[in-house]
Amino acid sequence: MTGFVSLVGAGPGDPELLTLKAVRRLAEADLVLYDALVETTTLNYAANARRFFVGKRAGRPAIRQDAINRLMIREARRGRRIVRLKCGDPFVFGRGGEEALALAAAGIPCEVIPGISSAIAAPLLAGIPVTHRGLASAFVVVSGHAESAYGPVLRSLAPGSATLVVLMGMANRVEIAHALHAAGWAPRTPAAVLVGVSRPGSGAWHGTLDALGTDILPDDGDLPGIIVVGAVAGLAGMLSTQEAGHQLSADGTTDVRRQSR
Amino acid sequence: MTGFVSLVGAGPGDPELLTLKAVRRLAEADLVLYDALVETTTLNYAANARRFFVGKRAGRPAIRQDAINRLMIREARRGRRIVRLKCGDPFVFGRGGEEALALAAAGIPCEVIPGISSAIAAPLLAGIPVTHRGLASAFVVVSGHAESAYGPVLRSLAPGSATLVVLMGMANRVEIAHALHAAGWAPRTPAAVLVGVSRPGSGAWHGTLDALGTDILPDDGDLPGIIVVGAVAGLAGMLSTQEAGHQLSADGTTDVRRQSR
Repeated sequence: MTGFVSLVGAGPGDPELLTLKAVRRLAEADLVLYDALVETTTLNYAANARRFFVGKRAGRPAIRQDAINRLMIREARRGRRIVRLKCGDPFVFGRGGEEALALAAAGIPCEVIPGISSAIAAPLLAGIPVTHRGLASAFVVVSGHAESAYGPVLRSLAPGSATLVVLMGMANRVEIAHALHAAGWAPRTPAAVLVGVSRPGSGAWHGTLDALGTDILPDDGDLPGIIVVGAVAGLAGMLSTQEAGHQLSADGTTDVRRQSR
Repeated sequence: MTGFVSLVGAGPGDPELLTLKAVRRLAEADLVLYDALVETTTLNYAANARRFFVGKRAGRPAIRQDAINRLMIREARRGRRIVRLKCGDPFVFGRGGEEALALAAAGIPCEVIPGISSAIAAPLLAGIPVTHRGLASAFVVVSGHAESAYGPVLRSLAPGSATLVVLMGMANRVEIAHALHAAGWAPRTPAAVLVGVSRPGSGAWHGTLDALGTDILPDDGDLPGIIVVGAVAGLAGMLSTQEAGHQLSADGTTDVRRQSR
């Protein structure tokens, strides 16, 4: 009897942003392989499962990708129900496609359960709609980890034609700001940096594109930072998107807000 | 005593893709205002609420946007807990930002609860990861309802530099294919059209960019159709992303798959 692998999106952090289907698969699981930044409360839904951390610690993977794949295949062949739990959505970065291909090649039944992507939810929870009538009828989500990843998009896209959301780009934020400036984006385009949204210790910075390259930003430490650039980022101060008593400022959040210059 | 409005994302259709928080808010609600394509099973979570359909029927709004806003404000001032239930994510098209601004202007407490966006989940459920190592390190989500919305993005973006996801673009799919061709996208770039994914009656077409402008596609009828263009669309045949017994071909689904030419 062959088992089954569910690649499951855990959402941006808050366990209440799990889907019903994710919770059901966790409850049924024999084995959970989880990434960094998955909350303990989320893992508690997997009451009957052995749980293994397979993410990154201090920037280094705890276990190699091919070892994760081999582990899933071996345990599935033993009949186990496996949940591979990933932050956000399994197919927005995070190598979900590669894992699904490896499982398919090994003949292991696999499903993928979408999760709330931080690319959309982090701006939302900070009061920034990625689309908004009259301001943005498109948005771009791009990896900021290397120029080869973000360069072709940032250099070509018509300035202001879409909201930009950059994941994994905190280390390159100065280069990203310069690339947008060089491409013709207005220096006063609203911008924001959102760190660890929906988690304890979250923080936000609000400013403009020119300040993005020069300001001191919240330390992202081990939490993921997301850069948002576009007219919609200017709505952040006008929208209330968090329930009373659960404002961003709860849980030790910092919120640094700069006037545009 | 002032009530409270939750703008809630219902996800792509399948009620199991609701978040725990969405289900909790529905259970607490006194009043639910819901859009077209919200499933009956989803509304059943709002056991104690009056429920009003405020979406579009046969392409026409059942109620004007300003009337929806006024209704939410009036009922909140009467102390009601209101859920404004939207398909997908409240801030990916769907005017969630406008509603949040109207509520903020009226001094009504409001929160926004993210939902699974079809822009990412529809490709996922059809076996297409919007990002994939070596194929796509960015994706673009754009409204296809008017050239003024999609033109600036499609004309400028470096061909092949990102996965394209076009929502509300079925009526303009020939113009969209031509715009991409004119911008220099390779005619044999993989493409897909996904209709009503995660719902009964869903359908999918798989082909290439040149065929997107000429082939007969699944009828989208009243279900939303999503266009995906990019190398990742070529993975659809290789990935299994649906649990056994719940393949896309269940529930009367059609799946038309074309060889690239």
